Amino acid sequence: MILKWDFMNLKAELEKELKVYNEFKNKNIKLDISRGKPASEQIDFVSDIFQKAETENNFYMQRKGQDKLDVGNYGLLAGISELRHLFADLLDLEDDNLFIGGNSSLNLMYDLLVLNIMFGNQDSEMPWGKLESMKMLCPSPGYDRHFMMAEHLGFDLISVPMREDGPDMDIVESLVANFPNIKGIWCTPLYSNPDGFVYSDKTVERLAKMEAAKDFRIFWDNAYFTHHLVEGKVNRIANIIKLSEQYGNPNRVYQFSSTSKITFPGGGVSLIASSKDNIDYILSHFKYKTISYDKMNMYRHALVFKTKEDVESHMEKLAKFNRPKFDLTLSILEKELKDYEKYLFYTKPEGGYFVSLYTMSNCAKKTYNLCKDAGLIMTTAGDTFPYGIDPNDSHLRIAPTFPDLKELENALKLFVTCVKIAILEELINKQDNFIE
Amino acid sequence: MILKWDFMNLKAELEKELKVYNEFKNKNIKLDISRGKPASEQIDFVSDIFQKAETENNFYMQRKGQDKLDVGNYGLLAGISELRHLFADLLDLEDDNLFIGGNSSLNLMYDLLVLNIMFGNQDSEMPWGKLESMKMLCPSPGYDRHFMMAEHLGFDLISVPMREDGPDMDIVESLVANFPNIKGIWCTPLYSNPDGFVYSDKTVERLAKMEAAKDFRIFWDNAYFTHHLVEGKVNRIANIIKLSEQYGNPNRVYQFSSTSKITFPGGGVSLIASSKDNIDYILSHFKYKTISYDKMNMYRHALVFKTKEDVESHMEKLAKFNRPKFDLTLSILEKELKDYEKYLFYTKPEGGYFVSLYTMSNCAKKTYNLCKDAGLIMTTAGDTFPYGIDPNDSHLRIAPTFPDLKELENALKLFVTCVKIAILEELINKQDNFIE
Repeated sequence: MILKWDFMNLKAELEKELKVYNEFKNKNIKLDISRGKPASEQIDFVSDIFQKAETENNFYMQRKGQDKLDVGNYGLLAGISELRHLFADLLDLEDDNLFIGGNSSLNLMYDLLVLNIMFGNQDSEMPWGKLESMKMLCPSPGYDRHFMMAEHLGFDLISVPMREDGPDMDIVESLVANFPNIKGIWCTPLYSNPDGFVYSDKTVERLAKMEAAKDFRIFWDNAYFTHHLVEGKVNRIANIIKLSEQYGNPNRVYQFSSTSKITFPGGGVSLIASSKDNIDYILSHFKYKTISYDKMNMYRHALVFKTKEDVESHMEKLAKFNRPKFDLTLSILEKELKDYEKYLFYTKPEGGYFVSLYTMSNCAKKTYNLCKDAGLIMTTAGDTFPYGIDPNDSHLRIAPTFPDLKELENALKLFVTCVKIAILEELINKQDNFIE
Repeated sequence: MILKWDFMNLKAELEKELKVYNEFKNKNIKLDISRGKPASEQIDFVSDIFQKAETENNFYMQRKGQDKLDVGNYGLLAGISELRHLFADLLDLEDDNLFIGGNSSLNLMYDLLVLNIMFGNQDSEMPWGKLESMKMLCPSPGYDRHFMMAEHLGFDLISVPMREDGPDMDIVESLVANFPNIKGIWCTPLYSNPDGFVYSDKTVERLAKMEAAKDFRIFWDNAYFTHHLVEGKVNRIANIIKLSEQYGNPNRVYQFSSTSKITFPGGGVSLIASSKDNIDYILSHFKYKTISYDKMNMYRHALVFKTKEDVESHMEKLAKFNRPKFDLTLSILEKELKDYEKYLFYTKPEGGYFVSLYTMSNCAKKTYNLCKDAGLIMTTAGDTFPYGIDPNDSHLRIAPTFPDLKELENALKLFVTCVKIAILEELINKQDNFIE
């Protein structure tokens, strides 16, 4: 069919896809594959576990764990011992490396950026905010909220290409060695947002080892550290906190994570994992803003997850909710976009919450708008890049987890139709230009 | 007995009190009346209510309220509608005036200070942090954490005397009218911390009306708005948000509160009540740091408290836990310090969590240290004043709620002994000086 890509074929093909598109449009659908949100059935499954754990443990009347303190009263700024230990175990660190926070790890990232802007860190000569400029490296595409947060707080965002094994380290090393105002880098090292890439051990080592400003910090958003998708396959990343210490940069890394996609999105617990020195420094500042985080919710989590293995087996069960959705996504992309392979490619993540589709240059925004006009909300094209600008206008992020399978199938069929239309129009446009 | 206050009598009296003191010291007690913490029995009472509400409403599996959104998933940055409405009702405001946050109102105060320092507010010519200096009025004595927070964030703290009807408004008005770098004032208007004073309508009106920098903000920590102690007596303060609007200063007030002492300390929900314009401005910044606060916990609270009346009748029940402790405190102070009346006075609060004792000048630190050495932790003397300096070294804060009645009685008997010893030593010292 369109394999020949001659002008008439392109036009005919476009006609055909537009017909499909208009059929979708007439259905007045409202679908959303824009955000990494678990589906309700997954949250039902988790809810059931929490309800049982509360009942079995007489949660409300017991309220006392290892710390022998009422979790329903003030105190313990660093969080309850059970969770500090649990996450230390999961991340191969010591309990003292862990701080347990509230319902949002994003909030902790913001707090640590603000802390560094206003006060600097232990290794700073001055608060970052007093510098002529503050710069942050942004491996791109990346997590839109990271980039927007840093921009909002006054950082210049410097884009660094993402590769399958992490950020382009030649570029990262060269930049941080030469520009001392580069104070941080955003990383989602395992199942990167949006590509699902896994940082290689070599990349992690180079990040830990590289020459950088003394007060440079890696914002290591390990959001998906237990979120494996492939049955029986667990991808692991190197321990950047230990490596940094070994290479003489003990305070370089702020690691973040949360249980948002393990238990309740926006209703779980968050964490910072870092050097003991960093944790102490953070506590010495956080004590001015709060007495303690929500230990009731921490204790609920401690009742549900007593060991590392409890978390791991729980996540194997949760994978069953998302795996069919990723399988469906990839099978539709494969089937429907076969003839377009020379113009696009997409990622095949082994964990996390996203699939990236890189369409033909100059086609992402058009695709996004076509989807939107037909009732399908995607992540805004460009948002996964600093300042919302995708230099190739090529990247689209698919978040397949929230809708049910039927809705997802509809959404993706509409999506691929839009992808095709945008490409066909671009090809026709190019040929037109060529003919002129 | 010591009514005559001659030298020999003072010495004899001191001997007697020191004997009592040493008996206490030999008991190796460990008591703490330093912080406004509810007792475990109160938290048990609340826990029971929450447990029942969860079960009766099938909380975990239902998870949907008025907003028709899964409270166990992301979204609704301003909080769930039920709680916005409930607190609007309690504070005589509109739902749009309310923002519901996480487990800590202190954290919200910190966040709004940081917001103003980094960005200013809608009425600012520049971020507060760009000013040559930032100043904050501190009616004193006040809440130690307020003062320490502001100092930590770089404000110059300006002490203003507290009176029974609120801060000395002649001084406040004069200062804010003349110094545009005064950007805020801390207020705990109802049952002030630590005195338990209630701002008069006149004071509130003057705060709403006074001439001040356009971007001046009142940090109105209405922590104890439902925490009445006297049976059948409800003290109310004027509605400062409405008054500010009437006087042409619609954005002047950030009101804060939380359910920390209604439900779980550090495990409840917090709120900001402010003009709609302020709430919108706050949301336009908070969206960069979090997706949403913990709606699971909000929804739990909404199940327990459906109406304003539910909260009010709940608080009447809670008063029964604290009332005997305040009664005991005041009766011990009255009985034991009768002969010292000309050297000290104490407050008789009708709500809140504290009793203030103003001892003889130059005696507070000594009293605090005597208590500490015998195993009784009080709020550090001076901490209720800016920079930790009580100019008279006279104020001591008693927080009677956490210990049980027996412990409290012990603590107070030790406390009054220390108060007496410090005064007697000071009197003897003065007479010595006089003799010399």
